[in-house]
Amino acid sequence: MNCDIKDKNLKSAGKKRIEWALSRMPVLEQVRQKFKKEKPLKGLTVGACLHITTETAALALTLKEAGARALFCASNPLSTQDDTAASLALDYGIEVFAINNEDNNTYYKHIDAVLQAKPQITLDDGADLVSTIHKRFFKSASGKKPDLPWASTEETTTGVIRLKSLQKEGRLLYPVIAVNDAYTKHLFDNRYGTGQSTLDGVIRATNRLISGSNLVVCGYGWCGKGVARRAQGLGANVIVCEVDALKALEAVMDGFRVMPMKEAARIGDIFITVTGDINVVSKSHFPVMKNRALIANSGHFDVEIDIRNLKKTAVKVREVKPLVKEYTLKNKKIIYVLGEGRLVNLACAEGHPAEVMDLSFANQALSCEYIVKSKGKLQNKVYKVPDSIDFKVASLKLKSMGIKIDTLTTEQKAYLSAWQEGT
Amino acid sequence: MNCDIKDKNLKSAGKKRIEWALSRMPVLEQVRQKFKKEKPLKGLTVGACLHITTETAALALTLKEAGARALFCASNPLSTQDDTAASLALDYGIEVFAINNEDNNTYYKHIDAVLQAKPQITLDDGADLVSTIHKRFFKSASGKKPDLPWASTEETTTGVIRLKSLQKEGRLLYPVIAVNDAYTKHLFDNRYGTGQSTLDGVIRATNRLISGSNLVVCGYGWCGKGVARRAQGLGANVIVCEVDALKALEAVMDGFRVMPMKEAARIGDIFITVTGDINVVSKSHFPVMKNRALIANSGHFDVEIDIRNLKKTAVKVREVKPLVKEYTLKNKKIIYVLGEGRLVNLACAEGHPAEVMDLSFANQALSCEYIVKSKGKLQNKVYKVPDSIDFKVASLKLKSMGIKIDTLTTEQKAYLSAWQEGT
Amino acid sequence: MNCDIKDKNLKSAGKKRIEWALSRMPVLEQVRQKFKKEKPLKGLTVGACLHITTETAALALTLKEAGARALFCASNPLSTQDDTAASLALDYGIEVFAINNEDNNTYYKHIDAVLQAKPQITLDDGADLVSTIHKRFFKSASGKKPDLPWASTEETTTGVIRLKSLQKEGRLLYPVIAVNDAYTKHLFDNRYGTGQSTLDGVIRATNRLISGSNLVVCGYGWCGKGVARRAQGLGANVIVCEVDALKALEAVMDGFRVMPMKEAARIGDIFITVTGDINVVSKSHFPVMKNRALIANSGHFDVEIDIRNLKKTAVKVREVKPLVKEYTLKNKKIIYVLGEGRLVNLACAEGHPAEVMDLSFANQALSCEYIVKSKGKLQNKVYKVPDSIDFKVASLKLKSMGIKIDTLTTEQKAYLSAWQEGT
Amino acid sequence: MNCDIKDKNLKSAGKKRIEWALSRMPVLEQVRQKFKKEKPLKGLTVGACLHITTETAALALTLKEAGARALFCASNPLSTQDDTAASLALDYGIEVFAINNEDNNTYYKHIDAVLQAKPQITLDDGADLVSTIHKRFFKSASGKKPDLPWASTEETTTGVIRLKSLQKEGRLLYPVIAVNDAYTKHLFDNRYGTGQSTLDGVIRATNRLISGSNLVVCGYGWCGKGVARRAQGLGANVIVCEVDALKALEAVMDGFRVMPMKEAARIGDIFITVTGDINVVSKSHFPVMKNRALIANSGHFDVEIDIRNLKKTAVKVREVKPLVKEYTLKNKKIIYVLGEGRLVNLACAEGHPAEVMDLSFANQALSCEYIVKSKGKLQNKVYKVPDSIDFKVASLKLKSMGIKIDTLTTEQKAYLSAWQEGT
Repeated sequence: MNCDIKDKNLKSAGKKRIEWALSRMPVLEQVRQKFKKEKPLKGLTVGACLHITTETAALALTLKEAGARALFCASNPLSTQDDTAASLALDYGIEVFAINNEDNNTYYKHIDAVLQAKPQITLDDGADLVSTIHKRFFKSASGKKPDLPWASTEETTTGVIRLKSLQKEGRLLYPVIAVNDAYTKHLFDNRYGTGQSTLDGVIRATNRLISGSNLVVCGYGWCGKGVARRAQGLGANVIVCEVDALKALEAVMDGFRVMPMKEAARIGDIFITVTGDINVVSKSHFPVMKNRALIANSGHFDVEIDIRNLKKTAVKVREVKPLVKEYTLKNKKIIYVLGEGRLVNLACAEGHPAEVMDLSFANQALSCEYIVKSKGKLQNKVYKVPDSIDFKVASLKLKSMGIKIDTLTTEQKAYLSAWQEGT
Repeated sequence: MNCDIKDKNLKSAGKKRIEWALSRMPVLEQVRQKFKKEKPLKGLTVGACLHITTETAALALTLKEAGARALFCASNPLSTQDDTAASLALDYGIEVFAINNEDNNTYYKHIDAVLQAKPQITLDDGADLVSTIHKRFFKSASGKKPDLPWASTEETTTGVIRLKSLQKEGRLLYPVIAVNDAYTKHLFDNRYGTGQSTLDGVIRATNRLISGSNLVVCGYGWCGKGVARRAQGLGANVIVCEVDALKALEAVMDGFRVMPMKEAARIGDIFITVTGDINVVSKSHFPVMKNRALIANSGHFDVEIDIRNLKKTAVKVREVKPLVKEYTLKNKKIIYVLGEGRLVNLACAEGHPAEVMDLSFANQALSCEYIVKSKGKLQNKVYKVPDSIDFKVASLKLKSMGIKIDTLTTEQKAYLSAWQEGT
Repeated sequence: MNCDIKDKNLKSAGKKRIEWALSRMPVLEQVRQKFKKEKPLKGLTVGACLHITTETAALALTLKEAGARALFCASNPLSTQDDTAASLALDYGIEVFAINNEDNNTYYKHIDAVLQAKPQITLDDGADLVSTIHKRFFKSASGKKPDLPWASTEETTTGVIRLKSLQKEGRLLYPVIAVNDAYTKHLFDNRYGTGQSTLDGVIRATNRLISGSNLVVCGYGWCGKGVARRAQGLGANVIVCEVDALKALEAVMDGFRVMPMKEAARIGDIFITVTGDINVVSKSHFPVMKNRALIANSGHFDVEIDIRNLKKTAVKVREVKPLVKEYTLKNKKIIYVLGEGRLVNLACAEGHPAEVMDLSFANQALSCEYIVKSKGKLQNKVYKVPDSIDFKVASLKLKSMGIKIDTLTTEQKAYLSAWQEGT
Repeated sequence: MNCDIKDKNLKSAGKKRIEWALSRMPVLEQVRQKFKKEKPLKGLTVGACLHITTETAALALTLKEAGARALFCASNPLSTQDDTAASLALDYGIEVFAINNEDNNTYYKHIDAVLQAKPQITLDDGADLVSTIHKRFFKSASGKKPDLPWASTEETTTGVIRLKSLQKEGRLLYPVIAVNDAYTKHLFDNRYGTGQSTLDGVIRATNRLISGSNLVVCGYGWCGKGVARRAQGLGANVIVCEVDALKALEAVMDGFRVMPMKEAARIGDIFITVTGDINVVSKSHFPVMKNRALIANSGHFDVEIDIRNLKKTAVKVREVKPLVKEYTLKNKKIIYVLGEGRLVNLACAEGHPAEVMDLSFANQALSCEYIVKSKGKLQNKVYKVPDSIDFKVASLKLKSMGIKIDTLTTEQKAYLSAWQEGT
């Protein structure tokens, strides 16, 4: 088997976990049944850079059942489940290159292993795979340009921001379907998935009582909204920090306190960053924090907390419990950072619940089919997932829950498309 | 004074009310101060078809201070505050044509009175004014076409739907700024304003305990979301009916029960329609409802509850208290309809709080200025309010609340626009 | 008819309102049907000092149907509904002494009118009636002591505090059933009733947007909890002030900010007092408040806001809209007080919803029956309502809602009463 | 060292964990500092049967610092943290008898080991220790009666029910302080602690999305209220089952659906029992459940789910992931039971957060001091913790959070104790 995994012996543990995930992803299941019959990816190679978890495994199987050769590497060194990787490679025939806690070198070597196979379709989560292709292309100045995939999908807000910035510079080399922008992805995954799993990560790492704490959420996008609502639902007093006046005002109207981070830093017991930006909790904040303040990040990259600075200025650093690092500052105060500032829901918990990934990955799978059908018709742009896929996913989900909804009557449809009727 | 109002003697009561509203609209106040100096609408005529309330009065004054001749008629016969209208006409010199409870004839006569003045800018709320212009234009087949305004604004979802339907048919005659689509409008007005005032309307009309009731919300758009959240916040058990799978799924994930109206009809104690569509509660639903079920509408038009059918099939109809009509069905069960099925927040309460209208109307005022500045540059399309106006409004609001937010550092801005940095 | 009411012509309006209330009080209805048959109060005189509202009317009818002569006076001068009083007297034969906005003199004259009839049972709400009896008794030092009732009921926390203070001094002259202490009263009436109607009062008086406001709740008893939860449910950022460490901690754990009033005074946009104590918002607080802060009281007496001081130090006082008084301070800031600092849910709205009073008043009615049955067996103490009455009321309410619950199996009952079974 | 633990080598891991807990229990810390100076338990033996966790370790140290000899055994075989036990014995000199997953025999042998030391004070959690003493006493019919402790404390609702049942039979042999009944215990531990940790247990075991699920809470006591609120806060649609009409009505008014278990069984996705009773989810319920329904218990004993019956009727039983047992029924449907039906927050998560145990155990420690001070003055009854202890604990907690509250003015105190002042 073409793969690079931690330990083959983990495969049976992995298989059990994958089966558990499969049982909880009814939407992808329905897509898989369809793909199994129709083989929409027959003969194609799909290269994916995603968190190597049980839910991703379910997507991998779906692509394979659709007829594709599937290669997977990790989109985050800390999120790889080694047992899942083992089973995926050995039980299911997916070419996996991922080892938990791999160093940066290995991380990019694994991306390379996927690219070697010259995939027609790439799936990305944070845009590291697609960025690598672009960097190589631009470097290979006069020489032979690498073959480019037909199109890619992108799973995250962070990745979409990076790719749109490429597009803006006029340098995006091939089309991207922003799966993240599907309503059934970002409205659900970000809000419900990140919302729950972020708090899950904080609680698993610390077993801290959320009730009665001042919980600072940095960023009030969909992820931040999800975290804030759930934190309040668990009894926290939520404070929101924002740079965008619209989102800040929305947070105020939703009943939260809004203030600059500099002020929030003095009040917070727990800090959660979900901004997609760099150094959101930084050197001016650490010294004014309360003793035993706890900081976690749930944004894609581990740049939101300025840990480098924290490390530099701390007089003592030690791990007080797994994934909880204690920094003692000069002023004697202690600050805890969870999961090294990496995505707390993956580092300290199990990432999004399968139920949520079910929606995202059904979008991923259907987007791959769409890429094949649209071959040659897409420009080098970042596209939103077509609405028809979005609705399909939502309908399959409702169906799987046994929930029925209304349909418009003829009269109602006519009314909605008329402009004459008024008061 | 060129006006048609109920009673001039109401003016001093109206003045007091307008002053109260003015004191609660700090964003519009800031815009008014600016307009007073800069006179951006100097020499122009503005024709507005809006709910004639104290908040609208604040907008009218702003337009007048900006240099315009301002004519106002009602966008809903039941929402006119006669005292406000009197003061607006007599104290503030606005040409008002609006009488509470006017008949349909008078309603359209009043629209006509505004159109007589040949406004360069129209403001609309539900698109009755703009539709009237369009109907006349199309009727005046071979004859002399009426002068068209430069552009219009539109305040509501309902109106935007009507106007986009016109645009789709290729028949929109002049540009429209969909104020409704401003984030500071629809995210705030619909969710927070309609949310609160709808329940306020139900409570004022009935003094019913919301806690422990099954409250059915038909439609899970921004208005429906606002109503559902607040109803839950007041202790209701909320059920959502939807025709859109995405919104239905969102409602499920937000913790509400979702089911077809046919089923909800059997369970609900209170029904609130906010769909923008026709006959949402209709003849198949009434007979299966619980005894003493209560129905209210908070959608723009009074078509969401099929009152005609209810009236026809009821064996007895009477008003049991102001704005509460009791229908006794053949099966002996009693059904109550509030405010004749018209917008319950206006019919039974005082409409949106001034704080919310402050945002919407600041958008309206700034959009009028934008129309002047963009003269000749807009196509015959429905435009979203420019983002810059949206942010301006949000920032002015935060400022008025004494709330400060973060700003991006240079490093953060650079990070957000870069695509190279990854894991 | 032996009565003192505002205007007999109001009776038909009152009747309609009473019927509306009757239709919404299914528990009391079931009690009334029973009393009608069994006549448990036959030949007795009942004197009640309660808010003269439509729901109280339903209680009055119940007592009359039970065979009693019923005399009613107001427990709050501002809460009397004159039309209800008229109908009660003229349509239903209840002896009513209550006029809205009556002066203090008339208020106590009306209490006297009730006492003239020498009731065997008194019903009180705030303990003004029972206190009057006590004051007279103690004054009539050597002279002839007045006849004392068999027992009284008391509806409010405030009244219970006053009566227990009497009991503590050893001077309580006859037994009192603290209806307030019934679970189906204070857990429901205070939390759900006061919770909703207090915010209803604030909104009706001001139409203020609750979302995004800093709302300070003074007192975190059951009323305060109800107000705080609903305010949060409407989007407010709630701050709690308390003097009791346990309740303060509970508020913290429920996710609210807790701070001394002196600090809250600087932050709040809306203040609601529900403490049962005096001068909770007082002279040290007014000058530090934000401009246009809004103060309302929902505690029983109008002593919680120190209006006397406010009036004295204000440079200008005027009513800006009905029930909203504007005080301009020396520092130019404006403060609004709602409903003269009297119970805002009664002064500015319609008091508790009938659905809530249904529970309280079913307790009242069943407690009257209990007083008769327990004649001679009760000591001069404040008693909680017997649990059996409490459960009866809860069961009748669930029944009226069509809600079924589980019952313990024999095995479960046995298990609960065993102490041997363990790990 | 007199102890029976799993593995001495675990002690350093245990020590780290205990230190983490100590850093999060500021109230107990303040009590410990006081006890260290005053030695209130000098020369006494304390025997405790509690969950052997890091928080219990903090209590053990406190008792030891107070001068006592301390012996600890487990109150639940599955909750023992073997590393904590090791450190407690070897680093801190506590005599510990507890091994995770010990069989019933060992469990009672360990209780016996504690009783051998003839403690003057016992601490219990579920009443197994105290019941054992009682059983022995009653068995030792004619022979020599064992020495009885001076008094005991009891931590749980379940234990208090058992002990009150003993008291009712007139057979309680020595006084018990129901620590559970302290407000700072049951209002906090049950609601906030069980609330959070129960959902934490479910999520850790399954990583299931709570949003959008039908979550059935059996029992609406303080634990049930805590679970229901937090489940709703995480986006669940909560259904409550109850046998008590008052609590059922409270659940309805809080916005939850209430129905008999038989009906809820058909609808629920997740079931959580917190009743303190037996077979709450039982044989009539399993067959009608949805496929893949998930059942967890958060009541003290593992009797709430009738697993024996489930096991008997299932056609296949297997562990699909750690602590998740899958039962396949004859009707092909699958049911999952978490943590063998034992306390899910201990079996699948880490039990109550330290912040919550801090309050409970401060009550425990202060109650031990109280037992010494009250020696000879208590009857053989179950007593509530004295209010003064309760307030002390709440005040220390607020202090540790830096939260200040108001104090009554002289005027306010006078007002509260007066009965004359009225309207």
